[in-house]
Amino acid sequence: MLHFDSDYMEGAHPKVMERLLETNLEKTVGYGQDDYCMKAAEKIREHFGCPDALVQFLVGGTQTNDTVIDALLKKYEGVLAAESGHINCHESGAVESSGHKILVLPSHDGKVWASDVEDFFISFLGDGSRDHMVYPGALYISFPTEWGTLYSLSELEELSAVCHRYCIPLFLDGARLGYGLAASDQVTMKDIARLCDVFYISGTKVGALFGEAVVAPRPELLPHFFTLSKQHGAILAKGRLLGLQFDALFTDNLYMDISKQAVTQALRLKEAMIARGYKPYIDSPTNQQFFVLPNGDIERLSGSVTFEVWAPAGQDSSIVRFVTSWNTTAEYIDKFISLLQ
Amino acid sequence: MLHFDSDYMEGAHPKVMERLLETNLEKTVGYGQDDYCMKAAEKIREHFGCPDALVQFLVGGTQTNDTVIDALLKKYEGVLAAESGHINCHESGAVESSGHKILVLPSHDGKVWASDVEDFFISFLGDGSRDHMVYPGALYISFPTEWGTLYSLSELEELSAVCHRYCIPLFLDGARLGYGLAASDQVTMKDIARLCDVFYISGTKVGALFGEAVVAPRPELLPHFFTLSKQHGAILAKGRLLGLQFDALFTDNLYMDISKQAVTQALRLKEAMIARGYKPYIDSPTNQQFFVLPNGDIERLSGSVTFEVWAPAGQDSSIVRFVTSWNTTAEYIDKFISLLQ
Amino acid sequence: MLHFDSDYMEGAHPKVMERLLETNLEKTVGYGQDDYCMKAAEKIREHFGCPDALVQFLVGGTQTNDTVIDALLKKYEGVLAAESGHINCHESGAVESSGHKILVLPSHDGKVWASDVEDFFISFLGDGSRDHMVYPGALYISFPTEWGTLYSLSELEELSAVCHRYCIPLFLDGARLGYGLAASDQVTMKDIARLCDVFYISGTKVGALFGEAVVAPRPELLPHFFTLSKQHGAILAKGRLLGLQFDALFTDNLYMDISKQAVTQALRLKEAMIARGYKPYIDSPTNQQFFVLPNGDIERLSGSVTFEVWAPAGQDSSIVRFVTSWNTTAEYIDKFISLLQ
Amino acid sequence: MLHFDSDYMEGAHPKVMERLLETNLEKTVGYGQDDYCMKAAEKIREHFGCPDALVQFLVGGTQTNDTVIDALLKKYEGVLAAESGHINCHESGAVESSGHKILVLPSHDGKVWASDVEDFFISFLGDGSRDHMVYPGALYISFPTEWGTLYSLSELEELSAVCHRYCIPLFLDGARLGYGLAASDQVTMKDIARLCDVFYISGTKVGALFGEAVVAPRPELLPHFFTLSKQHGAILAKGRLLGLQFDALFTDNLYMDISKQAVTQALRLKEAMIARGYKPYIDSPTNQQFFVLPNGDIERLSGSVTFEVWAPAGQDSSIVRFVTSWNTTAEYIDKFISLLQ
Repeated sequence: MLHFDSDYMEGAHPKVMERLLETNLEKTVGYGQDDYCMKAAEKIREHFGCPDALVQFLVGGTQTNDTVIDALLKKYEGVLAAESGHINCHESGAVESSGHKILVLPSHDGKVWASDVEDFFISFLGDGSRDHMVYPGALYISFPTEWGTLYSLSELEELSAVCHRYCIPLFLDGARLGYGLAASDQVTMKDIARLCDVFYISGTKVGALFGEAVVAPRPELLPHFFTLSKQHGAILAKGRLLGLQFDALFTDNLYMDISKQAVTQALRLKEAMIARGYKPYIDSPTNQQFFVLPNGDIERLSGSVTFEVWAPAGQDSSIVRFVTSWNTTAEYIDKFISLLQ
Repeated sequence: MLHFDSDYMEGAHPKVMERLLETNLEKTVGYGQDDYCMKAAEKIREHFGCPDALVQFLVGGTQTNDTVIDALLKKYEGVLAAESGHINCHESGAVESSGHKILVLPSHDGKVWASDVEDFFISFLGDGSRDHMVYPGALYISFPTEWGTLYSLSELEELSAVCHRYCIPLFLDGARLGYGLAASDQVTMKDIARLCDVFYISGTKVGALFGEAVVAPRPELLPHFFTLSKQHGAILAKGRLLGLQFDALFTDNLYMDISKQAVTQALRLKEAMIARGYKPYIDSPTNQQFFVLPNGDIERLSGSVTFEVWAPAGQDSSIVRFVTSWNTTAEYIDKFISLLQ
Repeated sequence: MLHFDSDYMEGAHPKVMERLLETNLEKTVGYGQDDYCMKAAEKIREHFGCPDALVQFLVGGTQTNDTVIDALLKKYEGVLAAESGHINCHESGAVESSGHKILVLPSHDGKVWASDVEDFFISFLGDGSRDHMVYPGALYISFPTEWGTLYSLSELEELSAVCHRYCIPLFLDGARLGYGLAASDQVTMKDIARLCDVFYISGTKVGALFGEAVVAPRPELLPHFFTLSKQHGAILAKGRLLGLQFDALFTDNLYMDISKQAVTQALRLKEAMIARGYKPYIDSPTNQQFFVLPNGDIERLSGSVTFEVWAPAGQDSSIVRFVTSWNTTAEYIDKFISLLQ
Repeated sequence: MLHFDSDYMEGAHPKVMERLLETNLEKTVGYGQDDYCMKAAEKIREHFGCPDALVQFLVGGTQTNDTVIDALLKKYEGVLAAESGHINCHESGAVESSGHKILVLPSHDGKVWASDVEDFFISFLGDGSRDHMVYPGALYISFPTEWGTLYSLSELEELSAVCHRYCIPLFLDGARLGYGLAASDQVTMKDIARLCDVFYISGTKVGALFGEAVVAPRPELLPHFFTLSKQHGAILAKGRLLGLQFDALFTDNLYMDISKQAVTQALRLKEAMIARGYKPYIDSPTNQQFFVLPNGDIERLSGSVTFEVWAPAGQDSSIVRFVTSWNTTAEYIDKFISLLQ
């Protein structure tokens, strides 16, 4: 059986596990105040070119989105996001449970357009009833998006510009950041840190057992973020586990190497599907691939491959999703291709 | 340097690490829907004698307290707890951030007395203004308490009885449950499950990298608990990591064996301190030991031992805390004793 | 100058003021526990044919929506509502600030269709990820809607049926309930109480200084609603003011008489506008009338009439709203008509 | 029957009612944007000597406390208050429902001591675990307190100083402000505005039907307070009703005249009780008087007088409260005194 359900089906990259093992019985202080966390944070600051950044390691994605958004918003503010945004769809209302409305923008294959943000502000600021409405207080985007798509560098620059023109922070959900950077021929780590006010770096889906590294290049944007994270239940007692994992991932280019591997294999899968006559539902350059498949083919394939059936597409077909991970080898894709014949 | 700061200074018990390693590259579904979680839950149900229990694995203690309490309370209710309760002191207001008041009861060496619960209800129900007040909706206790003390079996039975007389659930914070059970000559796993409506089993502090197992013997008390946990950011994507760790801990009596080891060594440390002439601040039978030490001795000892200075005790002394863990060996305590001479 | 900005521009109906005056120096207990509130509640139960109903008087609309929705929803649930719903647009995120997502349905001239509710549930229940989503826990509708439109009796019956088929309560925002009932030739007070699980009766916009009467025909749906209302800051100290006003409104058919007066005059205004060649934006039978007006005409008219400019409608026109109230006389509309010539 | 249950048993002062009546059928814009509100705000700024102050009229006390505290606190902060504070006892957990913990200080006859605030900060700032705790973000006091007591001018100055030394705002609950100012021979309106960062002026209990005027001498402390108030359901649609009432109260010294009347009569009642041999429970100079009465006397008196039985005081006695209001005449107290004989 081959599995393409998601990119969190395995444990961690062997080098990450090695790090955890070799330090397992050391004693350190808790809550991320240890040297491993300091060191990992420093490596992240270097890679992303933001020497003064606050770096805080949290455990999971929903938790991170909720905590960061709660930290960025004032109580009368909401967060702008694409209708397809993860926070709007699959986080059980975490943002709202912290008191904030999600102000929905159109999704363009998962992306938010700067012009839609601009239009929102023009309409909001021109509305005589705006004091009875929710103020837009931050913009949430994901890179790559929930549909596997990527912002171009100029799209990111435009979003950053429109946010700063209207004085709101740009927050980038990097739950798959490695795969996005690996797939982009334009956007670099330093671009992310230059254009975003807060972002996070996926560990969970990119080689770690778990963990997300929140980065705020200008730390004053997230005052007392540790305490707010604690309040959100997001601080790990044995915080060093996060530091150790990110330290391993940001040593010897491991993070980008394994991300590239996943993307390369995803594109091979994509080509094979196209060659077999299947139509991509969306043209994704990353490790998530969406196709429209006849339901009969889905049933047949399900005998030997697992993947997610995303949504119906007409009467007899469905949108399906195949996801590769840092652990997907060329041989694994070879087997998949042979199954397609 | 010897370390007695806390019981979360190391990684995990080698058998736990082994389980994680040997399954590391397996692919399973996420969010705890995998077989390892099912198996671990089943073992827990057996050990605690609650065959129908809901078992949900979460990541950390603050998160678990907040999520369970939020699940148990109606919106107009608060939670009763000792003034010294962890939720009231060191969780950054997590319970309140979910909208609920903590209704403070006196702390008797960390414990809540059934008579105080009774008095609270008598006073509340007799108060003509009670509709303008916060309703008591659950009782939170910890076992062992934050001061290392234990409820006797009859104390637990009385608390359970008073809760049920007033129709509120009894919730037991088991962030150190193993150490409590190991130290008690009365209270068993089955007593916990019989007397409490919801409790959780410490992983973080008792042999795991992280993880707390929430148990509700009557699952109808926690409807849609998975979704509420997701909303609280408490669901781990690679949920199997929790199942694997609890499976290891509940195999071959590992959980109780390592808990007993910690308690045995804590009691040796306690004896040695007393023999050296130091006075316990509180008479704790568990892995946390509190002493009143002259500040001069604290300074001297700090050269070779780390521990927490809890609070001032008069002009020249302080309350300090020594904590052992599942990994504290007899040799480690020998070294500590030799330092005391 | 003539004013059609809204239906809350005046004080209260003279008979309401008279009631307040004649009882002004009486002393009664607070918080609505007085006889006037009891009497008013009883009259409401009789008019609406729900003898066992809980009746709770609150102060304003946003407050009432937020409090009732918070009372009806479990913590993992959200409320279904039309995109145009007042709670989704003009309540500054009150529902979200209480922790709940608004699950948006299409607005059909302000109305929700039962088939959209049905589709939502079919899609939600069929979604394998539903445990990561917000559960639909109640349906919010308004009668009349924010666009002045009305549900027919069969539409209401279908909504009631679909809600009960999926076990969620139907909550009707009656911030203009009198005008809706006066305009409908189908829906009666008793229909409202028969088909809705909770609704409220406008005082603010229909003859009172302020006040909304929440009615739950089956009171068990709103346990401890007084305390939850107090928590929401919605309980008036001098509660009798609410009872007195509703008592006056529900004496000698005053509530319906003044509602009908407003609707009659609104329809005269509508006819005059149409006769003058203006096109209704939406065909409203109630006291709110929406027209598309050339911006030049808006400017000219603004010299002698005030009204709300709702939204742009193309380059040179806008949607405008004219609202009559219980205090709008035939002479007032005569003057308006003469201005149109 | 004589009534001393509370100071919100009647309607409004005749001059207030007159204002409402004479403007009743005027049409104004809603939500407090009308001229009456502007005018009333201006009078308040003049009386209190704070020409730049934000003045926002809300409806009731619990609502005002909750909204102001929510506006002042960051999400990781709580509010300091006396254990006896109204927000801690009789507001159904409103502050907590907005996400904030109440950090309890000792109550000294209802008052907070500056030295306790200082001690709290010294202990908090010296606590190595403070990042796991709730930050103190504001101080709540009431004037007069819930026990009818008053801060002296120097006590207020000390509280103001300690708050500003630790950079937190001082918020004064003025739900009975008039009675406090009337009873104090030291503290003036201008002192309140000079020493407090936010306070509010009672309408509900001092001559109005309802209404509280929030005043922030430096408005930048409450950004977008209107929108936050709307979110809290605290904005009255017919906002002018609040402006009209406060305009009347702050015309020709009415507010202070009626407050003084209430205090004068309360002190006569107090003297008579003492002369009759009863002991004050607390020495209150304001319109609330607390006595310890034998339960037999309470029963006897209850035949002709209503008042609140506050709490038991030993076996056979209870603490009772008598409250006068702006409407309590000398004749009314004469009758009471004659009943005592």
